[in-house]
Amino acid sequence: MQVAKVRGTVVSTHKTPNLTGVKLLLLQFMDLEGQPLDKYEVAGDVVGAGVNEWVLVTRGGAARKDYGADKRPLDAMVVGIIDTITVDNRLLYSKKDDR
Amino acid sequence: MQVAKVRGTVVSTHKTPNLTGVKLLLLQFMDLEGQPLDKYEVAGDVVGAGVNEWVLVTRGGAARKDYGADKRPLDAMVVGIIDTITVDNRLLYSKKDDR
Amino acid sequence: MQVAKVRGTVVSTHKTPNLTGVKLLLLQFMDLEGQPLDKYEVAGDVVGAGVNEWVLVTRGGAARKDYGADKRPLDAMVVGIIDTITVDNRLLYSKKDDR
Amino acid sequence: MQVAKVRGTVVSTHKTPNLTGVKLLLLQFMDLEGQPLDKYEVAGDVVGAGVNEWVLVTRGGAARKDYGADKRPLDAMVVGIIDTITVDNRLLYSKKDDR
Amino acid sequence: MQVAKVRGTVVSTHKTPNLTGVKLLLLQFMDLEGQPLDKYEVAGDVVGAGVNEWVLVTRGGAARKDYGADKRPLDAMVVGIIDTITVDNRLLYSKKDDR
Repeated sequence: MQVAKVRGTVVSTHKTPNLTGVKLLLLQFMDLEGQPLDKYEVAGDVVGAGVNEWVLVTRGGAARKDYGADKRPLDAMVVGIIDTITVDNRLLYSKKDDR
Repeated sequence: MQVAKVRGTVVSTHKTPNLTGVKLLLLQFMDLEGQPLDKYEVAGDVVGAGVNEWVLVTRGGAARKDYGADKRPLDAMVVGIIDTITVDNRLLYSKKDDR
Repeated sequence: MQVAKVRGTVVSTHKTPNLTGVKLLLLQFMDLEGQPLDKYEVAGDVVGAGVNEWVLVTRGGAARKDYGADKRPLDAMVVGIIDTITVDNRLLYSKKDDR
Repeated sequence: MQVAKVRGTVVSTHKTPNLTGVKLLLLQFMDLEGQPLDKYEVAGDVVGAGVNEWVLVTRGGAARKDYGADKRPLDAMVVGIIDTITVDNRLLYSKKDDR
Repeated sequence: MQVAKVRGTVVSTHKTPNLTGVKLLLLQFMDLEGQPLDKYEVAGDVVGAGVNEWVLVTRGGAARKDYGADKRPLDAMVVGIIDTITVDNRLLYSKKDDR
């Protein structure tokens, strides 16, 4: 999985019926220093993440492992909101400090 | 999923029978600033997207989740026409303004 | 799918039995301007493509959707010979003109 | 699979139930000279790897082949702790010497 | 599939039981000129390839298509030892000449 920051949302009314009811988040990937990368992903969300939150995004078939998601054409899914990232016993990110 | 702009079409008459009847769109990927990238994908289309429209493209097994698509050798599929993309509460793209 | 040009062939006599009888083509990927990229793929071929022809190549599980291919360890397959590519209503490639 | 070094951990309390009980490691990929790359992966762990250990990480559907993991939305998994890497009959890495 | 050269081996004694008995080769990818790239893959081997041999490596689900491999957490597999690579009717590589 990759670490990403929720940057916004994507709205599509004319879409395949299999995507009905799926909230689509625009995620920007973060690097190992906690800095934003140029890479992004539009992902489904099952955890109710909000803008600026750091999340875990899973891709590929893993994005379709949650309830009812096996028929959805999703290749990326937010599966968790990150509380802390620890690197070399140092706190790289803490949701608490990020507010 | 990635955000892409429909740039054109690809025609192939001599192809595997499993691709018969599938419209193939040439998509150019867009970056987080709404600028075109060098990357592209040739994708099937289930939503009837037209040239210059911004679309959501899904890749991998997710491209074969729509009706009858599970036997098609597609690794990319247009699954929605984008209305709006919002980044940091700012409108990055709006289909209405794009005309 | 990606657009690629058939550049040659790869021969392997000592291989897994599941690859017996599969013709392996060496494909070079093309960019959005119709110029060759550094990227390549060795792919199976179900359409009988020849050297210099432009083809559509599918990757991942999609490469194993054709007849009997579900047991083959292929991650890339030529699924069509390209007749034309149209970008912004301009002909980027035409097989007829390419001869 | 790729060679990676365990750099830390990621904690997420608000996550999909399918990830409950999965330890998530932050892995940094290594290159062919044994130097760290900018690339990382957050992966599940079934072997009990610790910080600074070099591990093998598998990605995609392969990450869900272990006991009970087929329903987890994991796209990366640590599947082994590396003892030695030999390149051209030279020892590139040895866990014993790394302590 | 990609063309790679066998550079060495990776040994892991503390690993998931599903990898028991699998020989793990360190492969370096080759480019279209037959020169080594920075990219590598640690792959299972079903053909008995040796150091310095050029091989075909398949990735993703394709790596688990061989006998008993469907339960193994492998995302890359050596599926053939390359005899010859021909590009534009010129021999790019020949195993015979490589000795």
